[in-house]
Amino acid sequence: MKKYKNASGSRLKIIALGGLEQIGLNITAFEYEDSIIVVDCGIAFPEDDMLGIDLCIPDVTYLKENIDKVKGFIITHGHEDHIGALPYVLKEVNAPIYSTKLTIALIEHKLEEHGLLDSVRRKVVKHGQSINLGQFRIEFIKTNHSIADASALAIYSPAGIVVHTGDFKVDYTPVFGDAIDLQRFGEIGKKGVLALMCDSTNAEREGFTKSERTIGAVFDGLFDTHRKGRIIIATFASNVDRVQQIINTAYKYGRKVIVEGRSMVNIINTAQELGYIRIPENTLIDIDRMKDYPDTQVVLVTTGSQGESMAALSRMAMNMHKKVSIKPNDTIIFSSTPIPGNEKSVSRIINELESKGADVIFQDAHVSGHACREEIKLVYSLVKPRYSIPVHGEYRHRHAQAHIAEELGYDHEHILMIHSGDVLELSDEGAHVAGHVHTGAVFVDGLGVGDVGNVVLRDRQHLAEDGIVIIVLTLEKGTGQVLAGPDIISRGFVYVRESDALLEDSTEVLEESLDSLIERGISDWGRIKNTLKDDLSDYLWKKTKRRPMILPIIMEV
Amino acid sequence: MKKYKNASGSRLKIIALGGLEQIGLNITAFEYEDSIIVVDCGIAFPEDDMLGIDLCIPDVTYLKENIDKVKGFIITHGHEDHIGALPYVLKEVNAPIYSTKLTIALIEHKLEEHGLLDSVRRKVVKHGQSINLGQFRIEFIKTNHSIADASALAIYSPAGIVVHTGDFKVDYTPVFGDAIDLQRFGEIGKKGVLALMCDSTNAEREGFTKSERTIGAVFDGLFDTHRKGRIIIATFASNVDRVQQIINTAYKYGRKVIVEGRSMVNIINTAQELGYIRIPENTLIDIDRMKDYPDTQVVLVTTGSQGESMAALSRMAMNMHKKVSIKPNDTIIFSSTPIPGNEKSVSRIINELESKGADVIFQDAHVSGHACREEIKLVYSLVKPRYSIPVHGEYRHRHAQAHIAEELGYDHEHILMIHSGDVLELSDEGAHVAGHVHTGAVFVDGLGVGDVGNVVLRDRQHLAEDGIVIIVLTLEKGTGQVLAGPDIISRGFVYVRESDALLEDSTEVLEESLDSLIERGISDWGRIKNTLKDDLSDYLWKKTKRRPMILPIIMEV
Repeated sequence: MKKYKNASGSRLKIIALGGLEQIGLNITAFEYEDSIIVVDCGIAFPEDDMLGIDLCIPDVTYLKENIDKVKGFIITHGHEDHIGALPYVLKEVNAPIYSTKLTIALIEHKLEEHGLLDSVRRKVVKHGQSINLGQFRIEFIKTNHSIADASALAIYSPAGIVVHTGDFKVDYTPVFGDAIDLQRFGEIGKKGVLALMCDSTNAEREGFTKSERTIGAVFDGLFDTHRKGRIIIATFASNVDRVQQIINTAYKYGRKVIVEGRSMVNIINTAQELGYIRIPENTLIDIDRMKDYPDTQVVLVTTGSQGESMAALSRMAMNMHKKVSIKPNDTIIFSSTPIPGNEKSVSRIINELESKGADVIFQDAHVSGHACREEIKLVYSLVKPRYSIPVHGEYRHRHAQAHIAEELGYDHEHILMIHSGDVLELSDEGAHVAGHVHTGAVFVDGLGVGDVGNVVLRDRQHLAEDGIVIIVLTLEKGTGQVLAGPDIISRGFVYVRESDALLEDSTEVLEESLDSLIERGISDWGRIKNTLKDDLSDYLWKKTKRRPMILPIIMEV
Repeated sequence: MKKYKNASGSRLKIIALGGLEQIGLNITAFEYEDSIIVVDCGIAFPEDDMLGIDLCIPDVTYLKENIDKVKGFIITHGHEDHIGALPYVLKEVNAPIYSTKLTIALIEHKLEEHGLLDSVRRKVVKHGQSINLGQFRIEFIKTNHSIADASALAIYSPAGIVVHTGDFKVDYTPVFGDAIDLQRFGEIGKKGVLALMCDSTNAEREGFTKSERTIGAVFDGLFDTHRKGRIIIATFASNVDRVQQIINTAYKYGRKVIVEGRSMVNIINTAQELGYIRIPENTLIDIDRMKDYPDTQVVLVTTGSQGESMAALSRMAMNMHKKVSIKPNDTIIFSSTPIPGNEKSVSRIINELESKGADVIFQDAHVSGHACREEIKLVYSLVKPRYSIPVHGEYRHRHAQAHIAEELGYDHEHILMIHSGDVLELSDEGAHVAGHVHTGAVFVDGLGVGDVGNVVLRDRQHLAEDGIVIIVLTLEKGTGQVLAGPDIISRGFVYVRESDALLEDSTEVLEESLDSLIERGISDWGRIKNTLKDDLSDYLWKKTKRRPMILPIIMEV
């Protein structure tokens, strides 16, 4: 694919900067002449083979190279996979942030942690309002999702209107605030929409996603039948409406509510300050006051519904939580489903909880925040875009949306499956991928951003697999005579007691190789190191069928 | 818990030697006076944190210590989690193996690989037959499962009868052979059964598991609607009945069948030789002849339905298979569900397959091989044991079976939840855990059995997380003067180009520590090493928030 140069032109460009291959790196640039706006800026959690990596952020080289064009970041909602990379990216590309009230508040938490609160401008936008940024006008449209204040965007450009749904579902009876503004989708559709970028996450699922409100009735039933002890409910920290329903049910059944887990406490506090959650007086109590109430009058809402080993629920299950341990008569409700990849961790926690005598309820207390097939069809039917650009979700999910578009009569030329780095050019005349920009995931490990790359990861994998064997050797300067060693030290290779004989024999192998090298008059360090490494590697493979990393070190005195 | 001594006594002991905590290590000893029989002998696949481990086998110290009592291994069916550890365990505890024809044939494959074919006795038992081993008589009872020739066991001892279901389901219309022998369960139940050890795997699932035969109709429908190209079906290698149904459907639709993947080829060959599968002439073709047929006349049955990275389907999806690459118009059917923990790998493969234009079908083409709640109730109602001992499955699944037993009227004293190593004593007078024997998982890594323990694993985890930093130093014998170093070498820590300055500064930190040690006249190697390690660790944590393994090495010349 030809390398994309920042050519001038009057077409609208949609640039997939982030993670179409890696879920979470949601970041898309819209470019028209001298203006770039950026939609969302998320992080991805590391894959299994990214050892030691804390998180992944998008590579924004393209934005840095075009920094004078960047007018701002438009954020659809406050989930980590849409806001998490902002503090990192803003350090390189500082531009104002535009979003709804709760979303901005959650972003401000992050900016504060990174000391960016004073240096980054941000503006709260209401649903129905528009902002003008260079050649673009961006309208925020009310949607529903598993976090309050989510928005779809209508992006007006001289080339046409693009509707971006963000993450959304259609909830006719939301717990807080209004239903999705379907009328406005229809109204904009009537104007003529160039392209629809629609959430694909649930595109494989039939029917409609249930309303968040249905969970209220589920909680009611569960509180009614589980009266013998504490109720502990694990859910996503950011699902404020879910917590609202727990609070409502707790209030009805005369239970006090304790919120536990740092991220959840943060979000609930923020939501309460901003009026996104209504808590009856004397309902919320501090965890330290839990002991003042009988178990039958307590509900604990906690993080850790994904089995995260450091989250509050895990610590409770493993008896490592300072203030709560699980006991018989506890009822634990998972108000969540495992995100793919977390099934086993979640199962491990359920085993722990049940072996401590708790009752675990794992079904029916969750609804998704994403639109299913019929909702996606509804949005297509209201917006009637010329082009379909499936976004959000793995390839299989975007592919499933492409199938839906086909069913609705779109042909292959009007369904645009784009890949990370693709520059999609759109105009009245047509749509095509016009080039490619540098993108990818940048690894964050501790304080380091981008200082762990594929070489380091490959080394970590090698070390993880079979450990390391170090050969040390001291040579005399000038003569090359062996003064000390070869000594062998290993870590992560084989249990020491078992390995004594093996390492002794290995030393002999090395001594023989060294003798042979000296006999042949070879004194080049590179050759000595490679020979020792290869000979030891062959020997260990023969003996153990393992290939530890072998690291020869030569000192000279 | 008191350490269990091999006390003489006339009670029946059931000893949970294997994996009640780790799924797969199915091995249970039954002991009465001078006789021990062992039921099943499975392997477990390593957990995520068991880095570099190939597989886990059970620790059979107890059997080794009582080797003269061990009369034989009774195997319920031929799945890896029931036979996989036999070659390892037999090397330590050689005793005859008793099982059904197909199961023995699959075991013989393993014995051959390990060179044990001549040294281990084995005997084929038919359903309905009994064998006498010391104080025990063991009757094999026909059941249904996702592999042919599965058995339940009625274990007759002077203390009473124990019925062990093995892994089972109730299939009234099996594809091959007879339905489960429910009459015999009832007949034995009438005699009076001391304890029932029943499969818990699906105890959380409502209703009945569907018959394997229903999949035939599903394949028929799929073959009918997907006629435009090849059909590739991924399923479990050992599910011979599933392959039979694929062959039947292929034959009906005029397609040739190719079997791909080493384990599947092995099992299908064995099943064919023994008459467990019927293949119409000219239906099965070699993979090299695939090119002689149009795509519309070919079905490929393959391993890899769990997303295993080295299995045939993965290699096809990643374009790494020598003979098959995926192309548009291919239809790939997953005739399986992901085993917990494999969801993400499976999803990754689906993404790859779909991005190559293939149609992927992921639903409805699988039924489980395990009994659901109503089937478990049926077996309880036929056997009517005095004691319920839930087996097989994670704690949550066994706990779910305990709930079923409660529903059926069993009280807590008659439901026995046992843990690994528990010695359960059963007699007419009662049941209690009388002690504990040494058990656990032994790690197999390459050729090494048990030479990788927790210390090695902890080191591997440490290395995987942040890599290793090695400090080398040469001191003069006697004076302790520094002749060379300190030098620093790192692997898996930080990208080299970025780390130059960091490692340079680190060297300075080490030089300062060394100077201070020398000034204070400290020459003890242990103290020198610890000081260098701690100082460097603190410095690197401050600079990077990472804690690589730090390994100081001192040479003396």
